Amino acid sequence: MIKISILYPNTPNSRFDMAYYLEQHMPLSISLLSAHPDFQSVSVEQGLSGVMPGSPPTYSVMCHFLFTSIESFIAAFMPHAAQLQADIANYTDVEPIIQFNQVLVSQ
Amino acid sequence: MIKISILYPNTPNSRFDMAYYLEQHMPLSISLLSAHPDFQSVSVEQGLSGVMPGSPPTYSVMCHFLFTSIESFIAAFMPHAAQLQADIANYTDVEPIIQFNQVLVSQ
Repeated sequence: MIKISILYPNTPNSRFDMAYYLEQHMPLSISLLSAHPDFQSVSVEQGLSGVMPGSPPTYSVMCHFLFTSIESFIAAFMPHAAQLQADIANYTDVEPIIQFNQVLVSQ
Repeated sequence: MIKISILYPNTPNSRFDMAYYLEQHMPLSISLLSAHPDFQSVSVEQGLSGVMPGSPPTYSVMCHFLFTSIESFIAAFMPHAAQLQADIANYTDVEPIIQFNQVLVSQ
């Protein structure tokens, strides 16, 4: 199982429109990507704090997609890449960190 | 639902003993934390690459615990904090980024 993680840095003065992200971008993204048969699941989290209470979280938002393989994610994403990437500017001005991960433990 | 994310930066020359982590640290950590009734799930992933094929991942390893609340995680973790934190030096020399997240989407 492969997890694609999209991490939005919580930088000073950065903009993140959570309403647009949750009500427009993610429903579109989930609708397009979950149509692929190898889509497994998706999660979205809002950063609350760092390890110390009240400290700022490193990431304002994290999003994780589970697919059976990198190839299947690429196949699901590429037909919609231009549309989804163009939409990012509508909710944030930060560049997300994206990485592919191998799931080793899930219980 | 709350997700506690522990992200190990993939820095040049950093050390991460994956065998020790998977065979010693995580089984201990899961055994201790999952004993709490508010423990929900845990996942561990190994970074494969950044968004460009062959580029290094930002994080070598990510670990995520799901609990019903921050308070229940703290209650589960604090009795074992010293033991678990002392064990970190046995598998890595990087300081993990830890943050608390509110789960907004899970499907």
